[in-house]
Amino acid sequence: MLPDRVHLREVGPRDGFQNEPETIPTAVKVALIERLAAAGVTRLEATSFVRADAIPQLADAAEVLRAIRLPDAVSVSVLIPNERGLDAALQLRDRFDEVNVFLSASETHNRRNVNRPVADSLAGVTRVVERARAEGLRCQGTIATAFGCPYEGRVDPARVAELAEALVVAGCEEIAFGDTTGMANPAQVRSLFPRWAQALPGAELTAHFHNTRGQGLANALAALDAGVTSFEASFGELGGCPESDPAHPPPRIPTGNVASEDLVSMLHEMGIETGIDLGRLLVASRSVQEQLGRPLGAHVLTAGPVEWHAHA
Amino acid sequence: MLPDRVHLREVGPRDGFQNEPETIPTAVKVALIERLAAAGVTRLEATSFVRADAIPQLADAAEVLRAIRLPDAVSVSVLIPNERGLDAALQLRDRFDEVNVFLSASETHNRRNVNRPVADSLAGVTRVVERARAEGLRCQGTIATAFGCPYEGRVDPARVAELAEALVVAGCEEIAFGDTTGMANPAQVRSLFPRWAQALPGAELTAHFHNTRGQGLANALAALDAGVTSFEASFGELGGCPESDPAHPPPRIPTGNVASEDLVSMLHEMGIETGIDLGRLLVASRSVQEQLGRPLGAHVLTAGPVEWHAHA
Repeated sequence: MLPDRVHLREVGPRDGFQNEPETIPTAVKVALIERLAAAGVTRLEATSFVRADAIPQLADAAEVLRAIRLPDAVSVSVLIPNERGLDAALQLRDRFDEVNVFLSASETHNRRNVNRPVADSLAGVTRVVERARAEGLRCQGTIATAFGCPYEGRVDPARVAELAEALVVAGCEEIAFGDTTGMANPAQVRSLFPRWAQALPGAELTAHFHNTRGQGLANALAALDAGVTSFEASFGELGGCPESDPAHPPPRIPTGNVASEDLVSMLHEMGIETGIDLGRLLVASRSVQEQLGRPLGAHVLTAGPVEWHAHA
Repeated sequence: MLPDRVHLREVGPRDGFQNEPETIPTAVKVALIERLAAAGVTRLEATSFVRADAIPQLADAAEVLRAIRLPDAVSVSVLIPNERGLDAALQLRDRFDEVNVFLSASETHNRRNVNRPVADSLAGVTRVVERARAEGLRCQGTIATAFGCPYEGRVDPARVAELAEALVVAGCEEIAFGDTTGMANPAQVRSLFPRWAQALPGAELTAHFHNTRGQGLANALAALDAGVTSFEASFGELGGCPESDPAHPPPRIPTGNVASEDLVSMLHEMGIETGIDLGRLLVASRSVQEQLGRPLGAHVLTAGPVEWHAHA
């Protein structure tokens, strides 16, 4: 019942980088994106047109888009927070293929993230999607805290489905369900995706897991079992919105997204194709590890791929 | 089809500690073991009677066994490499309940680990188990490299089943299948455990996964799906026999066993009981983290448990 092949969108250049405190040179980002594409990544969230004062790390969005040289097969996505972001992105309309719009399933997370109620976000997103589609852009809608909210706790799956349906009605062909702070568990994932799939006939459903509590790949396995064939991940396990235990400040940087290297390794070992060359993905990832000057979280970066050939 | 409850054996004091380069004071080990028991751990691999020159970290096995004060409900296990180890352990017969004997499924790994062929290991293990059972001890047999060997690559599952059957015939009530260097994948796990269960009616089958490539919890989920209800893990993701990529020496210490904290968190979130108090387990783990002076690998140690209560 497992799929033969899945789609993987690499979100490291955006979701992975956005919380990095040190400014990463544009040239490093461009080289990374080109290396990722050379490794066989065909879906790539390259950057975001957010306000530069909100996320200084992505202030070079236009420069990155202008500089990257990618094969036609690569679908470049940009995160668009609002119409002003879309205006900026449309200056470079021929440099990307998809937009990713977002809102949170929980009111508190949405307010803390973008300082407005979910209904206002939905209205804004709807305008962005309408205009983006008029420009011929494919639209993806991401629902953050879809599996749980660090402020509100449980999130009603029916509310998530309702928001997803609204995004599809607005024109999103793909809905990503974000486990923004790593609260999802496999039993929940197996229960929710079939429910959401039923509510969203025709839409592509994407699993966006974080590895905050180490369950990222277990949740990915559960999603595969539930029929999901589209995933998002970041090289190096970078990024995310980690929720740390306030009573015990973390002694290390909390992990973010599921590591692309580890997800690709698991999928390939299970006989599920991704089109990605793991060795070349590791090369891309190591180049950033050197730049950031610290070991990244992807396990396969440390251990290397599984080696089935005898070398006794 | 998932179980309501699983058994978890904490192997950190033995498998977790044995590769630690700095000597951990006996008092720290004793306090840890008592904290683990206080957290609700009822199966505990406390130490190993190996040669002190082979694994200096566990040279205090007798001191540890003599010092620990545990509730009766806790079943204390010791790893026994050979009859000499059993002789030493039997000096303290009333201080433990189970012995764990081991061999590798692959010849090369067995030779590199204990410098003898698998057949010789099996003969030695059989003698140990016979004597241990005569002393009223419960016997567990562990098969290392059961899912793949870093030297030989693929391991024949029929060979693993054959060794497991021999261990059961020798008197082992429980067989642990070790993914010693993290080569297992969930598809393989789902395929192999039912096969092994069929070959071993009446025996308890235990999954011993390492998180070398980040798939530990995904493999645990797959094992649950395959009917496994007994697991081994180490607090802090310590231990193991990490296989690192020779071309790229690791920039960090490779991870070992599946982290008990992360496994317990996942199981509890899925509604599967372990009898363990995660908060108290984290307290135990943090005490060792301070002793070792570096952040341990368990994700939940950094992120904290999932908090479902609203605190907006």
